[in-house]
Amino acid sequence: MDLGSFIVSFDEVKVDVSRFFDLSHVIENGMPVYPGDPEPSVERVASLDEEGVNLTRLVMGSHVGTHIDAPIHFVEGGSSLDEIPLSTLMGEGVVLDLSYREVGTGLSWEDFEKFSSLVKEGDIVLIYTGTSDHWGEEGWDYRRFTYIEDSGAMWLLEKDVKMVGIDCMSVEKFGFSEPVVHRLLLGSGVPLIESLSKVMGELVGNRVFVICLPLKLKGVDGGPARVIACLIEQ
Amino acid sequence: MDLGSFIVSFDEVKVDVSRFFDLSHVIENGMPVYPGDPEPSVERVASLDEEGVNLTRLVMGSHVGTHIDAPIHFVEGGSSLDEIPLSTLMGEGVVLDLSYREVGTGLSWEDFEKFSSLVKEGDIVLIYTGTSDHWGEEGWDYRRFTYIEDSGAMWLLEKDVKMVGIDCMSVEKFGFSEPVVHRLLLGSGVPLIESLSKVMGELVGNRVFVICLPLKLKGVDGGPARVIACLIEQ
Repeated sequence: MDLGSFIVSFDEVKVDVSRFFDLSHVIENGMPVYPGDPEPSVERVASLDEEGVNLTRLVMGSHVGTHIDAPIHFVEGGSSLDEIPLSTLMGEGVVLDLSYREVGTGLSWEDFEKFSSLVKEGDIVLIYTGTSDHWGEEGWDYRRFTYIEDSGAMWLLEKDVKMVGIDCMSVEKFGFSEPVVHRLLLGSGVPLIESLSKVMGELVGNRVFVICLPLKLKGVDGGPARVIACLIEQ
Repeated sequence: MDLGSFIVSFDEVKVDVSRFFDLSHVIENGMPVYPGDPEPSVERVASLDEEGVNLTRLVMGSHVGTHIDAPIHFVEGGSSLDEIPLSTLMGEGVVLDLSYREVGTGLSWEDFEKFSSLVKEGDIVLIYTGTSDHWGEEGWDYRRFTYIEDSGAMWLLEKDVKMVGIDCMSVEKFGFSEPVVHRLLLGSGVPLIESLSKVMGELVGNRVFVICLPLKLKGVDGGPARVIACLIEQ
């Protein structure tokens, strides 16, 4: 019995669920964080040798590693992490390859428009920029990441997508004066997934089935999530 | 277009994925914890009013709320949380109704044996004891929860299940002298889900499809998880 292999059918699409890719970074001491954010602390507080059990204390910001931005992160009265429905966190989507743009540049309406035929209403759109290829790289300047421009955010809203993910620490240009892209997307009830891993590069150009399960933090602006996706087989 | 509804097919079984139940507790200040464990701290460190953004600091033990015990929790050299494969964390399973036993008693081989025909090799077995009905109850003594006896653990291993979940703070009797049940199950590479919510009561007696995604904590003994399940329709 091969329990790892089964088929999801949705309308005319199918996925082999044994082939899920894990798009989440590991959480560990010394991991990259958004410049200025606190580093997480993962500290063993009891051990098998001494106390007969391994136990760990975790300290982290709500936007550590692969994580969700809930609307309330930047929008007064917006939904918190525990209020995002499972129907938003799971579903069909697409992985767009924006890595032809140099890392650190902005993604505009025109950059997205060429993928127009790939994106469906209600999609979870995952944007691969290549920024994630530098995750953990010695000496990398983490202020340098590709971001979404206002017009790019408008394109995503025009497409009526339900969630947007990106392999960068933020959707917003580093050093922004106003968080316009966050406000546009979160203000329209579109949660964000930030800091997806480079594993998503394996899926570029394809329609995928996405499952994104964040911690159920009550009233909180965001939180770490486990995000997995697999190819939809036509 | 109803994006919330689609069908999973596995061999002869189907599930309507729009009907997933969330079996996870919310994580918040003052939530119940295993007696003696530290309470989590969820602290807003920046706010829209003052800093123009909501940010939160999270402090918690690795076994807070609905969480996974990885083998290394009690087994030297066992797998850590990030090493548990997705193929173990997802799949077919069953929700057994052990709530006919008084809350606080032990579950033996005989208690499980009556469900023998429901459980398949490789299942994720979720055990509803009714202990979860008291989660958050004023004055409840959290040392009182149903647990698995050695013979119950042997029954689960005999069935060759791949993961075991329970709606109690531990699978082990409170005040144990030796963590025999943990050692039996984790020592056989069977991760545990503890503190599932009473929502699982909606699914008792049924075969289900389970998705359990914990934080990807590197080298760690366990961690909070989001656990969802839905009915398999024959």
